[in-house]
Amino acid sequence: MSTQTVRILLVGLGNLGRRFCDLLAEKGPPVEERYGLRLLLVGAADSRGLAYDPQGLNPALISQIKQDGGTVADYPLVGRPGQAANLVAYAEADLLCEASPVNLQRGAEPGLTHVRLALERGMHVVTPNKGPLVLAYQELHNLAARQGVQLRFDGTVAGGLPALYIGQRDLRGAVVRCIEAVPNLVTGYILELLAEGLPWDEALERARAEGVLEADPSFDLDGWDAAAKLVILVNAVMDFPARLEDVERAGITGISGAEVLAARREGRVYKLVVTAERRADGGVDLRVAPTPLPAEHFLAHLGRKQMGVVYHTDIYGTVMAAIDEPTPLPSAATMLRDIMDIFCGQ
Amino acid sequence: MSTQTVRILLVGLGNLGRRFCDLLAEKGPPVEERYGLRLLLVGAADSRGLAYDPQGLNPALISQIKQDGGTVADYPLVGRPGQAANLVAYAEADLLCEASPVNLQRGAEPGLTHVRLALERGMHVVTPNKGPLVLAYQELHNLAARQGVQLRFDGTVAGGLPALYIGQRDLRGAVVRCIEAVPNLVTGYILELLAEGLPWDEALERARAEGVLEADPSFDLDGWDAAAKLVILVNAVMDFPARLEDVERAGITGISGAEVLAARREGRVYKLVVTAERRADGGVDLRVAPTPLPAEHFLAHLGRKQMGVVYHTDIYGTVMAAIDEPTPLPSAATMLRDIMDIFCGQ
Repeated sequence: MSTQTVRILLVGLGNLGRRFCDLLAEKGPPVEERYGLRLLLVGAADSRGLAYDPQGLNPALISQIKQDGGTVADYPLVGRPGQAANLVAYAEADLLCEASPVNLQRGAEPGLTHVRLALERGMHVVTPNKGPLVLAYQELHNLAARQGVQLRFDGTVAGGLPALYIGQRDLRGAVVRCIEAVPNLVTGYILELLAEGLPWDEALERARAEGVLEADPSFDLDGWDAAAKLVILVNAVMDFPARLEDVERAGITGISGAEVLAARREGRVYKLVVTAERRADGGVDLRVAPTPLPAEHFLAHLGRKQMGVVYHTDIYGTVMAAIDEPTPLPSAATMLRDIMDIFCGQ
Repeated sequence: MSTQTVRILLVGLGNLGRRFCDLLAEKGPPVEERYGLRLLLVGAADSRGLAYDPQGLNPALISQIKQDGGTVADYPLVGRPGQAANLVAYAEADLLCEASPVNLQRGAEPGLTHVRLALERGMHVVTPNKGPLVLAYQELHNLAARQGVQLRFDGTVAGGLPALYIGQRDLRGAVVRCIEAVPNLVTGYILELLAEGLPWDEALERARAEGVLEADPSFDLDGWDAAAKLVILVNAVMDFPARLEDVERAGITGISGAEVLAARREGRVYKLVVTAERRADGGVDLRVAPTPLPAEHFLAHLGRKQMGVVYHTDIYGTVMAAIDEPTPLPSAATMLRDIMDIFCGQ
């Protein structure tokens, strides 16, 4: 078996990017042995700087620098201050992993610029960053097609669950009539605490203490994250050009602990559920809402660290999938899944 | 978009083959429009005869003939008595759908001969028939690789659930440490009746009356079907050459209704569970056994018409999937899924 080298740029070294470096260090050798694929990290950038070495950077060292609170600008010899966009614009590489922070305001920047630039330069792009997909799904797909490269984003929906691959590939030939999903961990965790009788402020406190809550909790609690994931799911699986502004959205902040407790006493489980239902006229109704699910519903069984999706189809029955994800590792591993899929084909 | 024609041979016109004809009739036009793929059934065979027409047979007519209790030998003008193997040996086609009955005894014939012959002639093969895969997994894969064609068998495990695609593709790069699955519908149905308090003979009677039970019920009840599916799963997903004789197998016939009832009173749910566990020495322990699952186990929630699988991995967390399959249509549709996957690539 001949070995193929994939030169990778990684932009974003937060929770996911740093773990992706760990994965490259750990999985590089077995992936090369098993699939003949040499994953070579040639460039990396965070918000403070970048490093580029055509011979390959040491992903374990980058991970260590980040865990110690440093920046990749401090990488020995080849690290320097600078903007990630410069790395994407000038480095020689085959593929960009875009893992910069999600930003649905301000035009999904800087992620959108990075993705566009990489595609324009003929690189494949792999990204768990929802922003560019939510704001420019069709534009980016058209660009990738024109350039003859792949754009993959399995990590944008429901963490490490291959929700998009199941929906796009395994349901080919079917009409997907309805999608239901619980794609957000934070809201499930807080609803669970409320169901145990904790008051709202203590539940928030606990989530914050466990590092589950973002600095701006509104992104999760008000349903923006779930809505963004629904938009991507529907574009990818239902082939329908859904937009964020088409989603009827209610977050969990309007729910009282008493409501959650009362539902639980009746055997119902509150989850922040996203739903897409195909209408008779060809349109799709999009909804994010806290929903008291009956105990027998597939999504009612999801545990604290679990996300799930249900596809109602015409010819494949009802296909359901869930993931238990105690750490962000599976979300970071979606980048490995996407890369393997591009280069190992079928 | 240019249109590619796929000339298909279909062997076996039972429950799955007949429904696949319905699917070709219903899904042919939208698949051609959406994917530029023209699915042309040029040959079909059942146990009594065959029909071959390079210009294409009418799948809806074949389905009608079979529903009326006839044979494809009666197909107007081109139907004739004869053996399926002759069709596979002489017809010009791109792909064989092998849907003849499962037969783990007698060398998995006639399915194995059909699959070998088609691969040797350079056809792709799609099959929901477990027999050939269980008995000759590696041989058939080697043959397909030498011939540069695809061998797909998503329908051999857990009906319409894409258990193999999830395990083989979406978990690429991971070590799958353990697989648990409930891949058999019949045993789940009977265990459910026992849990409702029906005595064994009445449960069997009911299953037979509803057409769920095969003429030889031992294949399902004694765990042979589940064991065969486990062998295919482990070969495909764990990359381990498991054989049927390696499986420690117990069916459900040794379980009394009283045991099932007692478990249910304690909140435990009996299912016929298959398990594959990787040992430290690199081997894999294979087991089929009726198991009283705790209520919080993913597989404990499966309903009467549901099957499921759980993959425990090192980097993708725990990935779980299930299907609700009220009719055999999703199982037949796996042949469409496999064909689409071969010809529509990624």
